[in-house]
Amino acid sequence: MQYPLEYDTFNFGVDMNPREYLDANKQKRLDDLFDFLRIPSVSAKSENKKDVQACAEWLSKQLNGIGIESKIMPTGGHPVVYGEKIVSPDNLTILYYGHYDVQPPEPLELWKTTPFEPLIEDGYIIARGATDDKGQLWTHVKALEAYLATGTELPVNVKLLMEGEEESGSENLERFIKDNAEMLKADIVVVSDSGQFGKDKPAVTYGLRGLAFVEVKITGPDRDLHSGSFGGSIANPINILGKIIGALHDENGKITIDGFYDDVKPLTNWEREQFAALPFNKDEYLAKTGSVGLFGDTDYTVLEQIWGRPTLDVNGITGGYQGEGAKTIIPSLATCKITMRLVADQDPMDICNKIEKHIKNICPDYVKCEVTKHGGARGVVVPTEGPWLEAAGEAIKSGFGIKPVFVKEGGSIPVVGTFKEVLGIDTLLLGWGQADDNAHSPNERFALKDFERGCYSALALIDEMSKVKV
Amino acid sequence: MQYPLEYDTFNFGVDMNPREYLDANKQKRLDDLFDFLRIPSVSAKSENKKDVQACAEWLSKQLNGIGIESKIMPTGGHPVVYGEKIVSPDNLTILYYGHYDVQPPEPLELWKTTPFEPLIEDGYIIARGATDDKGQLWTHVKALEAYLATGTELPVNVKLLMEGEEESGSENLERFIKDNAEMLKADIVVVSDSGQFGKDKPAVTYGLRGLAFVEVKITGPDRDLHSGSFGGSIANPINILGKIIGALHDENGKITIDGFYDDVKPLTNWEREQFAALPFNKDEYLAKTGSVGLFGDTDYTVLEQIWGRPTLDVNGITGGYQGEGAKTIIPSLATCKITMRLVADQDPMDICNKIEKHIKNICPDYVKCEVTKHGGARGVVVPTEGPWLEAAGEAIKSGFGIKPVFVKEGGSIPVVGTFKEVLGIDTLLLGWGQADDNAHSPNERFALKDFERGCYSALALIDEMSKVKV
Repeated sequence: MQYPLEYDTFNFGVDMNPREYLDANKQKRLDDLFDFLRIPSVSAKSENKKDVQACAEWLSKQLNGIGIESKIMPTGGHPVVYGEKIVSPDNLTILYYGHYDVQPPEPLELWKTTPFEPLIEDGYIIARGATDDKGQLWTHVKALEAYLATGTELPVNVKLLMEGEEESGSENLERFIKDNAEMLKADIVVVSDSGQFGKDKPAVTYGLRGLAFVEVKITGPDRDLHSGSFGGSIANPINILGKIIGALHDENGKITIDGFYDDVKPLTNWEREQFAALPFNKDEYLAKTGSVGLFGDTDYTVLEQIWGRPTLDVNGITGGYQGEGAKTIIPSLATCKITMRLVADQDPMDICNKIEKHIKNICPDYVKCEVTKHGGARGVVVPTEGPWLEAAGEAIKSGFGIKPVFVKEGGSIPVVGTFKEVLGIDTLLLGWGQADDNAHSPNERFALKDFERGCYSALALIDEMSKVKV
Repeated sequence: MQYPLEYDTFNFGVDMNPREYLDANKQKRLDDLFDFLRIPSVSAKSENKKDVQACAEWLSKQLNGIGIESKIMPTGGHPVVYGEKIVSPDNLTILYYGHYDVQPPEPLELWKTTPFEPLIEDGYIIARGATDDKGQLWTHVKALEAYLATGTELPVNVKLLMEGEEESGSENLERFIKDNAEMLKADIVVVSDSGQFGKDKPAVTYGLRGLAFVEVKITGPDRDLHSGSFGGSIANPINILGKIIGALHDENGKITIDGFYDDVKPLTNWEREQFAALPFNKDEYLAKTGSVGLFGDTDYTVLEQIWGRPTLDVNGITGGYQGEGAKTIIPSLATCKITMRLVADQDPMDICNKIEKHIKNICPDYVKCEVTKHGGARGVVVPTEGPWLEAAGEAIKSGFGIKPVFVKEGGSIPVVGTFKEVLGIDTLLLGWGQADDNAHSPNERFALKDFERGCYSALALIDEMSKVKV
């Protein structure tokens, strides 16, 4: 990090409070972010292994530079950058989680700019990683810098866990958290790696769905058979798998597996009211998903379906001849992959057991049926009535000038479940991005305004969190 | 064709009748067959194009050599070898159909011999094409030679249509037959390209199932969607396709498509008795198919199911993510290929229309459903009470010393339908092979005894056919 010429844009913070420091260093924090964005830390591609390592070193140096003691910690894959600033054992401790790796930039021809040469256009920072997650992570780093550079005592202890494998499956993260549970001990986790509900609709996400994954394999004859010579007398595994898949939902979109909903907590009135108050336009939703119609459990609204109810989707199916034209066979095999999104308090392995039993009950004995149960991750919910959500709400109101909405997220972020399970603590998901920020797509972007409001919210969050009574 | 040293094995036929000629030339006809088998006429592989052409030339020369006027006729692909011997306008005319091309020999490492170096081992001719179809075709050529070489007047007119593309889809055959309908005009077609019912169980096949082919495409969202963000609110095309496939059969194995069985003639008592008299062993059948159980319309026996009843098989299905591990998507697309085996008098396009209607009725309107109707081929049945079957039966009794069984075949041979449709004539399927002759597999073989009995049956057939009153 060299700023020989830009030192005039850097205000050292003497005699400022943290907020004044943020006000005074707009250009500096953007310049730093641009340096961060310039490093092609693509975790999925082995050709970028050195870049990922360089990014970890750069980030660790930044943290040390602002007074957060940092180290690079090896994992089985890309390293974790860890930093902490412990002020007092009496303070609450916030654990920030983020990731410094990015998605591959391809397809390059669809970018209007160069992915690792960030620039500002029409009020947007455009670069790979702008919103996912370098830009969002940066808001917290810069909020902490505002305290430390101005000599203002941090009212909390902070720990930062920054992963380099989030975009390639976080394979080593659970192990890392388990191995370093004592080091990571904290009162609450803060993650900014998601989105607002819409334009000027900052959101606090207080729930995530979990996941359970099974694979189903139906074996008929021990090789593909001639459908003329044997058709009509030997069962076809695709026909059987179709029957099985067809019997997983009823006419109203409810899942028919015995006991599937046993542990599903009903949505509370507070939640249903929160969701109902959010703008939802059916036509826009269909356009956004490229669909011709809505489908789902008819007892629930769309937001309730995706945030508050479990689902079952066949993610892939394969069997028999898939080339051009016809091949008249009774295939030997048909397989499919099924994932179910779970809500708290469904247990992934319990759900895997239940679907296995259901499928084996349906499957006739003239074919072989194997169900591989992969388990999954539990859904997570932060109690809506605790002080953490209130603190987060106040911080966002301060940074955005707008009260946040409280939402859930239909997807799963397994690390949130791991924090709960291993460290016993809840996670606040405070996303500054937007759904149209093109995360994972060409022309990834992050509104400069959202970056700025994120920084001020992150700053306010430190103060609001410090007041929480646990 | 040079036989400088083997002339002593060649008996010229002077003062012999055709049967004596066959008796006297056992080695010669085997030597000729071996020459035929040595030509690697693999129609599917472009590297063998010259070999296929060489084989056509060799075959044509052979026919000319025995007194059948022959020519090589070009098609869009490999040529047809055509030959004829018209004795009298008052004679009945037999059209022989066979093919001189063969399947690729691969995998070579599974052969115990060299595929195009025929030899005799344990009473079997071993070579690619031994049974399919060079060896079987040869029985008819040699029966005709027995007449012509002995100066015995043929009691029928004969035409021979020998295809070079049967093993690669017969793409040009229908066109060829249509273009040459006048030339091919005949009273009956004889084909030896199939099998006996079992050891010492020569069979006359008097029926073939037809075929109808459709492809089904279900489109949900216009791209794969994140199953967390949207799951539960947007329909999954694989789930829907499963429901459709699951609704094509009832619990008893009957097809549920409205009107599907409308044109299906019930099995006659004669047929049910014929089939019931044939040996059938469930355990052997399961072992042969590598299956754990039987499936099928419970109102019918296995032979009735595969010979006399229509079927519906999904031959291939594809959709979503098929790689390793999980990918949590709602896929955009799911497609499958469905073929139905038809019995006379079901019309392929009528059946395609019926399944399309059925599927569109089931498919909900929140996804798009396309059914591509490819049509197919009608099933074929030779009337069991006509004189042709009787003549065939007598010929086989003469050649094998055993009365044949009358069977049907579950598969389709489209050319048989084309003969019926274009030339208006029936086909007799007289197969000398066995199910375990490894047609299309390594170590293809043809029992020398079956080759011999085939030659004598083919000889007797000429005489028996000449007596038929049409």
